Amino acid sequence: MATIDKLFQPVQDKVDDTGNKVTVVGVGQVGMAAVFSLLTQGVTNNIAMVDVMADKLKGEMMDLQHGSAFMRNAKIQASTDYSISADSKLCIVTAGVRQREGESRLDLVQRNTDVLKIIIPQLVKYSPDAIFIIASNPVDILTYVTWKISGLPKHRVIGSGTNLDSARFRYLLSEKLGIATTSTHGYIIGEHGDSSVPVWSGVNIAGVRLSDLNPKIGSESDPENWKETHEMVVKSAYEVIKLKGYTSWAIGLSLSQLARAILSNVNSVHAVSTYLKGEHGIEEEVFLSLPCVLGSAGVCDVIRQPLTESETAQLRKSAQLMAQVQAGINF
Amino acid sequence: MATIDKLFQPVQDKVDDTGNKVTVVGVGQVGMAAVFSLLTQGVTNNIAMVDVMADKLKGEMMDLQHGSAFMRNAKIQASTDYSISADSKLCIVTAGVRQREGESRLDLVQRNTDVLKIIIPQLVKYSPDAIFIIASNPVDILTYVTWKISGLPKHRVIGSGTNLDSARFRYLLSEKLGIATTSTHGYIIGEHGDSSVPVWSGVNIAGVRLSDLNPKIGSESDPENWKETHEMVVKSAYEVIKLKGYTSWAIGLSLSQLARAILSNVNSVHAVSTYLKGEHGIEEEVFLSLPCVLGSAGVCDVIRQPLTESETAQLRKSAQLMAQVQAGINF
Amino acid sequence: MATIDKLFQPVQDKVDDTGNKVTVVGVGQVGMAAVFSLLTQGVTNNIAMVDVMADKLKGEMMDLQHGSAFMRNAKIQASTDYSISADSKLCIVTAGVRQREGESRLDLVQRNTDVLKIIIPQLVKYSPDAIFIIASNPVDILTYVTWKISGLPKHRVIGSGTNLDSARFRYLLSEKLGIATTSTHGYIIGEHGDSSVPVWSGVNIAGVRLSDLNPKIGSESDPENWKETHEMVVKSAYEVIKLKGYTSWAIGLSLSQLARAILSNVNSVHAVSTYLKGEHGIEEEVFLSLPCVLGSAGVCDVIRQPLTESETAQLRKSAQLMAQVQAGINF
Amino acid sequence: MATIDKLFQPVQDKVDDTGNKVTVVGVGQVGMAAVFSLLTQGVTNNIAMVDVMADKLKGEMMDLQHGSAFMRNAKIQASTDYSISADSKLCIVTAGVRQREGESRLDLVQRNTDVLKIIIPQLVKYSPDAIFIIASNPVDILTYVTWKISGLPKHRVIGSGTNLDSARFRYLLSEKLGIATTSTHGYIIGEHGDSSVPVWSGVNIAGVRLSDLNPKIGSESDPENWKETHEMVVKSAYEVIKLKGYTSWAIGLSLSQLARAILSNVNSVHAVSTYLKGEHGIEEEVFLSLPCVLGSAGVCDVIRQPLTESETAQLRKSAQLMAQVQAGINF
Repeated sequence: MATIDKLFQPVQDKVDDTGNKVTVVGVGQVGMAAVFSLLTQGVTNNIAMVDVMADKLKGEMMDLQHGSAFMRNAKIQASTDYSISADSKLCIVTAGVRQREGESRLDLVQRNTDVLKIIIPQLVKYSPDAIFIIASNPVDILTYVTWKISGLPKHRVIGSGTNLDSARFRYLLSEKLGIATTSTHGYIIGEHGDSSVPVWSGVNIAGVRLSDLNPKIGSESDPENWKETHEMVVKSAYEVIKLKGYTSWAIGLSLSQLARAILSNVNSVHAVSTYLKGEHGIEEEVFLSLPCVLGSAGVCDVIRQPLTESETAQLRKSAQLMAQVQAGINF
Repeated sequence: MATIDKLFQPVQDKVDDTGNKVTVVGVGQVGMAAVFSLLTQGVTNNIAMVDVMADKLKGEMMDLQHGSAFMRNAKIQASTDYSISADSKLCIVTAGVRQREGESRLDLVQRNTDVLKIIIPQLVKYSPDAIFIIASNPVDILTYVTWKISGLPKHRVIGSGTNLDSARFRYLLSEKLGIATTSTHGYIIGEHGDSSVPVWSGVNIAGVRLSDLNPKIGSESDPENWKETHEMVVKSAYEVIKLKGYTSWAIGLSLSQLARAILSNVNSVHAVSTYLKGEHGIEEEVFLSLPCVLGSAGVCDVIRQPLTESETAQLRKSAQLMAQVQAGINF
Repeated sequence: MATIDKLFQPVQDKVDDTGNKVTVVGVGQVGMAAVFSLLTQGVTNNIAMVDVMADKLKGEMMDLQHGSAFMRNAKIQASTDYSISADSKLCIVTAGVRQREGESRLDLVQRNTDVLKIIIPQLVKYSPDAIFIIASNPVDILTYVTWKISGLPKHRVIGSGTNLDSARFRYLLSEKLGIATTSTHGYIIGEHGDSSVPVWSGVNIAGVRLSDLNPKIGSESDPENWKETHEMVVKSAYEVIKLKGYTSWAIGLSLSQLARAILSNVNSVHAVSTYLKGEHGIEEEVFLSLPCVLGSAGVCDVIRQPLTESETAQLRKSAQLMAQVQAGINF
Repeated sequence: MATIDKLFQPVQDKVDDTGNKVTVVGVGQVGMAAVFSLLTQGVTNNIAMVDVMADKLKGEMMDLQHGSAFMRNAKIQASTDYSISADSKLCIVTAGVRQREGESRLDLVQRNTDVLKIIIPQLVKYSPDAIFIIASNPVDILTYVTWKISGLPKHRVIGSGTNLDSARFRYLLSEKLGIATTSTHGYIIGEHGDSSVPVWSGVNIAGVRLSDLNPKIGSESDPENWKETHEMVVKSAYEVIKLKGYTSWAIGLSLSQLARAILSNVNSVHAVSTYLKGEHGIEEEVFLSLPCVLGSAGVCDVIRQPLTESETAQLRKSAQLMAQVQAGINF
């Protein structure tokens, strides 16, 4: 009799599912930081990874599996075949090509659209009820593209958006104030990246608005130059890329936080890229970040922040630019 | 327009489920320690509590709800009506009457059987696919009773059994050895309580069997008297009850560990009360503790420990006594 | 050779300290809920418990020790002798007598002062550098009493204050709004209990003040009657006590949160009872709750919330009443 | 008045320390996986990173800082100057040069010794009481080198050793058995890498030795070929490197586990590289892995496993080879 048969009296077949399976597409720096955050923070214990680079994919899978004793026996699977993603509750897409030198934004978007045209239908096929989070850049447009390709209702397609920009903003503010980041409240909305909009009117500590203490906060005429904090947020992405070659940890952690909100049905509020036609006077079908209530159903509510005229103008401008780019995409 | 309508732009209805709902029946000391362990250790964020004492039940629910900001927004529900338990993945039964002075064991079992005859069909009705853990005492017989009443397959009805006895054993050994409890390995099997059986042959540190260093370990003739450690395990339950009036924390934590194994489909090994006819020569349909592999399906395997003659004899004796008691139960 | 000597080759003596020792005085419902929260939430792994009831104390210690395998091998000690508390980083005092029927508030305060006169000097003697959190009621006055008895600087004596009231407030608001408690921001300040003051101007979701959407929020003339939420906070403590006999879980979790802020040097913001002479026009040496920045040094900053006239008036009234009671205390 | 002065009423200066500071030297793949594991698993909330590559170092620091809101406000510092490491409780060294094509082992060791001659005295200078964990390869010899250079007592210098090999072994066994890695017990000892020694006699599930069920387990003559599992452990490091270019996650998690044992004074058992003269007949001053009890003092005990003749012979052979290499090092 084999050793295993001597050891075990079988009672019932094991099941495969854990009810919280997450698929991550793309095992580059962002994808792997997301996977590692999800596992070490206990957001899920069931990960499937998909990529076209079979070797890299297998190497990452094995490396994680070797650590399973340190991560509550998490189940780690990987394949170039999307069937590995079957029955996921959440799919996170980090795959995508990078901008070539001299490439136009539209050309980049088109190339990534072509990538998503392969990825998204496969994911939808194997996990028809999943929520989708897109982290590939330019994230707002690619979230729109995913929504179009997938045919899913808008609440189930979410862009990682300015959740990361907001985290950077809160960190930089907290350093200036000398208190915990988690006690420093503030949102950056709109387009992820250069055109993002800090909502200074909402920045507060214990409910005390900094704009009540300093009405010029965030403006050009503020003698304390708090505006600089938002500028540093915009610059910091470029700076990290210049210094280490890419960004990974913070975006991975940001994705892990969003995943927890969804998998645990938390109904917490995060700035994520969502369908915005009709909000703040936006007339185009675009995805931009606003604070949203996230739960198992995906985006349940959008928070209606009172914005200044200039904030609204900037949002609308982003929306128009994006709609122009979107109009040129070949689906 | 109401404040809420001004604040939220609704996108999609929220869903109720989190995929990891646990119902705990009985909000006495054991039930509440279990609930609090489940929530603070992040095993679930969705608890339903059921009890016949409506006031106590509501008080416990409110007290926990007031702490939701400190427990990742856990969802806490409670009702005297079992419909609150609907769609649980796991039902933990801690309810039961206590032994009256002079009451025979059979009379106690009968009274608790009558209680389970009310509880179990309701739980099964509302969560037909759930796994059941019984913690009410005498736990081995009441697990059998639950199995009979429920009509469920044996792998889905589990008694908390000697998981707690084993934890006490490991703690007391670890104190003697001066190392961490989690690095001190050993199992107590059989009947929970006085007739439990320590499997000295398996006690090991880093795979080093203490019985290889001290062949008399656990026996009457051991000059180092390690046997005393098991005696202290048996006594300690009585001692805690004498000192503080009941036991709660350790059994609550034990239940939380078993719940995690099941909800997260861990396939980890724990000494729990399971159906044993055919194991170690047991001929009766009884539930006693052996090391079992626990996953989402419940008990997937029983570990076949090589036992000494005396260990086997003690198991069989327990089985016979339990079968006798069981024969007298009026279902 | 003894088994242990065969097993271990000793290299270096073990040390006792973990650098995060917490002493909890009082092992009643509040003290034990605090201890269990601290351990299961991983805030500390080193607890000392002190009480005058030797039996209950030992029973609680044993019950927790039996669960050490489930709580990362936490070290649990207990004694009626304060030497067990030596070298704590934090001391939490939950001990105290309850109000007798017909007893005046001053008489109750005096009896609890007499208790603190025994406890505090012992704690200070054995942990001269510790931070102190007082949870005994009436908490604001007893925090003042502790400060006086201890001779410690004011930043090291903290009352659990309205951190709990604020958590209840946020929970009740979150239920009304249908979102996560952790995304619902608001503070209750002032005296813990009936005279507490909700700061409606600071209540916000994602930086959106509810008072901007509903300028009458919290007032008598608010057609939506949000004021009721604060009334429910005040009533809920009484209701829980009526229903289950005491409050435990939420206050235990609140203490655990404050302990984490201090032990991990988080510099997060919490409404706790602190020395307030000079704040908001208060002229007396009293302790009342305001949002404070908490770190390893204790209270590092008090947040200056802009308050309405009526809010300030209520704070000052509480201060005056407390000063009167304090004047009658026999130290 | 500045905004900050309006917001805060200062009470007491903040302190810098958290009592659990960890310095990681080397921000390559291993160092960063270790740092990220330490932070996301809550082992410490206070990290200092040191490297000679100033840009990469700053980039990693910023990227982690941007995620502080997602990691309980962890404090992240980095500098090319070792003063940043001051007052660490634990120093983890992952720095080192890689083997050049055609380079002899001794030449590699010499080059890494030269690196350690710069690093170690600086770390010791700024954190004279810290425990040291070495992860640079060849880890056993470099742990010896660190011990020699540092002048520290042997219990305070630890090599990451075969803790990782053991984790891989347990994972591969668990896959074969179909149960959780954490319920699969077994140790690989000796030299990290190709010459490592699996202790088949200690491999057990619930205290049931597989060698009792299959006496030939691990040997050449075992018809079930369990030996293959150890061969896969040895190969898997090479395979991961071939597939993804380096190993990171599992070694990072392994280091995080060892760090928790030390920082939390757990006294848990792990296979780490420690000073072995006198153990198992080893006559040389070498560091090899045996199961050790790890606590705040470092290595407190070495576990004396009964080994077979062939296991002992292999250990001694490794010891002799290492002593030869060590004799050639120019300190």
